[in-house]
Amino acid sequence: MPRFTHPRLEDVPLDLALHALADPNRLAMVARLAETERLSCTAAAPCDSIPKSTLSNHLKLLRAAGLIETAQAGREMINRLRKAEFDARFPGLLDAVLANRSADAA
Amino acid sequence: MPRFTHPRLEDVPLDLALHALADPNRLAMVARLAETERLSCTAAAPCDSIPKSTLSNHLKLLRAAGLIETAQAGREMINRLRKAEFDARFPGLLDAVLANRSADAA
Repeated sequence: MPRFTHPRLEDVPLDLALHALADPNRLAMVARLAETERLSCTAAAPCDSIPKSTLSNHLKLLRAAGLIETAQAGREMINRLRKAEFDARFPGLLDAVLANRSADAA
Repeated sequence: MPRFTHPRLEDVPLDLALHALADPNRLAMVARLAETERLSCTAAAPCDSIPKSTLSNHLKLLRAAGLIETAQAGREMINRLRKAEFDARFPGLLDAVLANRSADAA
């Protein structure tokens, strides 16, 4: 059974959090998870054509930055955004990033 | 005479802006420029020991992200933060990043 490592938010440095958000695909995944509480890895993918290993690396980096939590649910891996914890660690940051992403997409 | 390229802020994508800020040295330079209006490249450096080529690359990336403007003033290159333009393009983003940096440094 795969085990995932999730950092304590106080151990996440600001530059790692920004790096995790500084990619259009990862940001699309974060935005999707901000809208839908829990998503399988496939459902969280930014597009259908993304290679599995690339998707896996993006999820790993999002976990390392304290942005998501991945847990096994039956045969699926389910991801959720650690919004409240991330917001407590980096007040206003995620909302500012997501608002700017929405403005660009509009 | 060196010539520097400065993008129009509307041409700067969000991921490039985040990438530029996702480095402790570049963020230290941005924070310093947010406090002091105009700084030479040396004065804007995050530390004395940083190699000139590294400093130059950091400044180049900050320019590409629309964060700073570099202009010749006599024999010096003077940098300033494009705060108002950056804020207009990415509302709330720079303030959220700088506030979180200050909180971490405190």
